Amino acid sequence: MTNIIDEAVIQLAERFQLPERVVNIEELPWVPFTDHESCYFKPLRFDLNTGTWIYLFRIKSNQVLGKHRHTGGSVIGYNIQGRWRYEDRSWVATPGTFVFEPPGDIHTLITEDEEVVTLFILSGALQYFDDDNQITSQDDIYTVLKKYRNYCTHHGIAIREDLIY
Amino acid sequence: MTNIIDEAVIQLAERFQLPERVVNIEELPWVPFTDHESCYFKPLRFDLNTGTWIYLFRIKSNQVLGKHRHTGGSVIGYNIQGRWRYEDRSWVATPGTFVFEPPGDIHTLITEDEEVVTLFILSGALQYFDDDNQITSQDDIYTVLKKYRNYCTHHGIAIREDLIY
Amino acid sequence: MTNIIDEAVIQLAERFQLPERVVNIEELPWVPFTDHESCYFKPLRFDLNTGTWIYLFRIKSNQVLGKHRHTGGSVIGYNIQGRWRYEDRSWVATPGTFVFEPPGDIHTLITEDEEVVTLFILSGALQYFDDDNQITSQDDIYTVLKKYRNYCTHHGIAIREDLIY
Amino acid sequence: MTNIIDEAVIQLAERFQLPERVVNIEELPWVPFTDHESCYFKPLRFDLNTGTWIYLFRIKSNQVLGKHRHTGGSVIGYNIQGRWRYEDRSWVATPGTFVFEPPGDIHTLITEDEEVVTLFILSGALQYFDDDNQITSQDDIYTVLKKYRNYCTHHGIAIREDLIY
Repeated sequence: MTNIIDEAVIQLAERFQLPERVVNIEELPWVPFTDHESCYFKPLRFDLNTGTWIYLFRIKSNQVLGKHRHTGGSVIGYNIQGRWRYEDRSWVATPGTFVFEPPGDIHTLITEDEEVVTLFILSGALQYFDDDNQITSQDDIYTVLKKYRNYCTHHGIAIREDLIY
Repeated sequence: MTNIIDEAVIQLAERFQLPERVVNIEELPWVPFTDHESCYFKPLRFDLNTGTWIYLFRIKSNQVLGKHRHTGGSVIGYNIQGRWRYEDRSWVATPGTFVFEPPGDIHTLITEDEEVVTLFILSGALQYFDDDNQITSQDDIYTVLKKYRNYCTHHGIAIREDLIY
Repeated sequence: MTNIIDEAVIQLAERFQLPERVVNIEELPWVPFTDHESCYFKPLRFDLNTGTWIYLFRIKSNQVLGKHRHTGGSVIGYNIQGRWRYEDRSWVATPGTFVFEPPGDIHTLITEDEEVVTLFILSGALQYFDDDNQITSQDDIYTVLKKYRNYCTHHGIAIREDLIY
Repeated sequence: MTNIIDEAVIQLAERFQLPERVVNIEELPWVPFTDHESCYFKPLRFDLNTGTWIYLFRIKSNQVLGKHRHTGGSVIGYNIQGRWRYEDRSWVATPGTFVFEPPGDIHTLITEDEEVVTLFILSGALQYFDDDNQITSQDDIYTVLKKYRNYCTHHGIAIREDLIY
């Protein structure tokens, strides 16, 4: 019988495979996401090939995060701790809630009286609205990378370059 | 000032956007992944567009899962509970460990004396080796979907069709 | 011998598979991309799951398209006809040139004295700069979808809803 | 007015951006895909991060390619030259035909009396059936990479390492 994967292919694959990546959140700082001390993140991956990033996101209790649009990308979230919801939607994320938001979605995230920790996978850009529904600023993979790098630099923390791949 | 997103685009986006999806793991059964009662999953998403699936994976303590290759796809894992490792690698996944394994990776997962729960995002196919390094079986998005549907049918559990998107 | 794909999986796959999609460019109009009559597109796919779109892009000869940034997404191009380049780069796309531009790339496309036709795969958003390097407008999957739908509506052309998937 | 992209982000992006990639098909050989001298490819990209590859595929006239399943990945095709179809389907690809085949699709490609050239984007694995519907062999990104590298080595052609990203 001919095996469907021949040994030479496995050897070639092993030679060319990207390296595996492993990081534990204990090794990463909580980086402020904004100036308001309302939310923080631990970066897990910056995929510069697609513009997708993955982070653990922590939001203080009783916060209303700025209304924003996910332009050109989607959101996947897996909630680990606390309860949160999007304004004007009927569901509440509790521990173990998995969420998909499609590209273009506009929402305002609201926490309750407990701190929230959620794993998020994001692509595209987050564009923030002011009260007149004008876009005033945005985040994408590079602004998040910049927040992380600047925070590490300012606090003398070694930057994990292996999060970029 | 001209806004960079005009209102008509937002209205069109709202009309065409895919629906958001929300599921909590409390609403899902632990589906046996194999016949060996060693591992179980709760499906979170079946992306039939790309062949990517997301599930919460539970592995009993002191297990050695079959050696397999991730053919044509990668693995992303975020470990939530317990400790596990891949045979012959130096790192151990503990709660909060984030892992990326590249397409083509071959590994054997081993748990310690505690049950493991990990969130996995998988694409491509898992191909299982026998002791002679022959591929004897494989899983892909459709076999996982089949395990889930069959389990629900046999146990009178309503199938969550909204996990497919 | 046990086959690695059992018949029941193939039957389930056939039941759940997304439908195939087929379109020929002859069936599609050239939709103006801007008001300047400089470039046109034939949409091939709107992937609302990821925000990626694919189109055949036609640019008139001797054009300088507006400087823009690919925020949150990449560009893949396969040039079919004509010659074009990005300002201040040393290479020229000719028929058969394949290009990858990473997320965040900023460029200005320039055509020569022949009309250009290129297949592009785009994700994220295109953000256009004015002369003061301010972002004045942007395109994403929804603005492109809107251009296409409006054009069809105004010209009495049936909208190909099957391009959306 | 505050710009939505600040200059520091653009500078950081420029520093971290993956390099652009440019290749013209004139620079690449036609690599035999099988031993049967029925089809050839020019590789355009090997994305080792996702297992996706892109190639220009050339099939001689009056061929019937082996029945195969796209396990764990999809097919996107843009036909440039010639006419081809999948057995038992009603449509025929002609120049300018764009095709999407979902993960799991099983088909047999047939050409007419003209040579075919199609741009294909593939992920996952191609698994080939014998007459008893057993899987006898498969291709994935690594087997295609191996065909390319071996061909170059045997013919003294420089390998384009910059196709891997």
